[in-house]
Amino acid sequence: MVLAKVIGTVVSAHKEERLAGVRFLLLDKINPATMQGKGDLVVAIDGLDAGPGEIVFFVAGSSARLTAVTDGKPTDATIIAIVDNIEIGGKYVYQKDKA
Amino acid sequence: MVLAKVIGTVVSAHKEERLAGVRFLLLDKINPATMQGKGDLVVAIDGLDAGPGEIVFFVAGSSARLTAVTDGKPTDATIIAIVDNIEIGGKYVYQKDKA
Amino acid sequence: MVLAKVIGTVVSAHKEERLAGVRFLLLDKINPATMQGKGDLVVAIDGLDAGPGEIVFFVAGSSARLTAVTDGKPTDATIIAIVDNIEIGGKYVYQKDKA
Amino acid sequence: MVLAKVIGTVVSAHKEERLAGVRFLLLDKINPATMQGKGDLVVAIDGLDAGPGEIVFFVAGSSARLTAVTDGKPTDATIIAIVDNIEIGGKYVYQKDKA
Amino acid sequence: MVLAKVIGTVVSAHKEERLAGVRFLLLDKINPATMQGKGDLVVAIDGLDAGPGEIVFFVAGSSARLTAVTDGKPTDATIIAIVDNIEIGGKYVYQKDKA
Repeated sequence: MVLAKVIGTVVSAHKEERLAGVRFLLLDKINPATMQGKGDLVVAIDGLDAGPGEIVFFVAGSSARLTAVTDGKPTDATIIAIVDNIEIGGKYVYQKDKA
Repeated sequence: MVLAKVIGTVVSAHKEERLAGVRFLLLDKINPATMQGKGDLVVAIDGLDAGPGEIVFFVAGSSARLTAVTDGKPTDATIIAIVDNIEIGGKYVYQKDKA
Repeated sequence: MVLAKVIGTVVSAHKEERLAGVRFLLLDKINPATMQGKGDLVVAIDGLDAGPGEIVFFVAGSSARLTAVTDGKPTDATIIAIVDNIEIGGKYVYQKDKA
Repeated sequence: MVLAKVIGTVVSAHKEERLAGVRFLLLDKINPATMQGKGDLVVAIDGLDAGPGEIVFFVAGSSARLTAVTDGKPTDATIIAIVDNIEIGGKYVYQKDKA
Repeated sequence: MVLAKVIGTVVSAHKEERLAGVRFLLLDKINPATMQGKGDLVVAIDGLDAGPGEIVFFVAGSSARLTAVTDGKPTDATIIAIVDNIEIGGKYVYQKDKA
């Protein structure tokens, strides 16, 4: 899975019918060592009501369909976790409640 | 999913039989922060009658088969949405009706 | 799908048994904007009798198994179309019968 | 599969329900020729109780679901082995019990 | 599929149980135009008794499970052919019996 920051939204009225009612967020992949965005943006389906600025991770590939909101839907990127803490080498590099 | 601009078409008479009648579009992946093409081109199946210059996003992998026009077909990239708006940090970086 | 040029062949006598009788071609991915090879070579299964120098596109991932010659076989790249024309911005960048 | 070093952990309370009780580790892919990290970090599910500093390899894609702890879960990266030895050209470049 | 050279082995005693008895080889992807390694190393399951220095190609993704030795196992890279000849533009760039 890949860590990313929620930076925006994508809206489409004309889309594959199986995607009706689905919410699309724009994510920027981050380097957790620095918590900086990589400028590598991806559109992901959100089933966790993630908000702007939140750190999440998403799942790619066929597993992106294995969530409560994406079963049977054509997705290759679905947010599956809103991150509370990231620890590297025993030190927190990110703590949501201190962000 | 990946945002891209429709820049052309690809035509093939001699192809896998399951692809009969399918329309192939040439897409250039874009960086939504700048809306510029990356020069990273991909051939995608179109089931939404997307037109030249339109901003779309496509789904990759096995999910590319999960649309009305691609069920059971050998595709790894299918357009699943024509984009109306892209918002980053509370500002629109793309609005179709103002493009 | 990815556009590529057929540049060679790969032969193997000692291979997974499900691949008996399958033909392997060596492809160089191309940038259709310039029609130049990228030097990014891939081995693909050919079910269309594609020949050297021809422009094709192949499908990657699990969809590579969904063709007449690859059903149930271990492949991640199968040629699914021999290209006749590529058009970008209303102009032909490739026409097979003029190549 | 890809060799990597365990460098940290990721914690999330708010996640897809199928991931309840799952442990997420942060891995840095390594170049086994030098055993150095590439700075290319990925979040993987751990079913082997891997610890910080250990060299592992993980499986990507749909196969990430084919382990004792990930069956039916949305994962695209699962640790499937803790590495004891890596040998290149007849010489050990890594031996766990001498690390 | 991707051409690679067998350069080493990876041994793990503590691994996902479905991988018991499986042999892991370390491969370096090659550029067949030059036959040089790219330094891009991957761990693959070997079902063909490939040996050090041999040129092989492996299959990635879900197809990596579709071989005699990997059925139902968590793999994303399996060697499916030991290469005898590679020909580019009508000339052999590799012949196993002359290597």
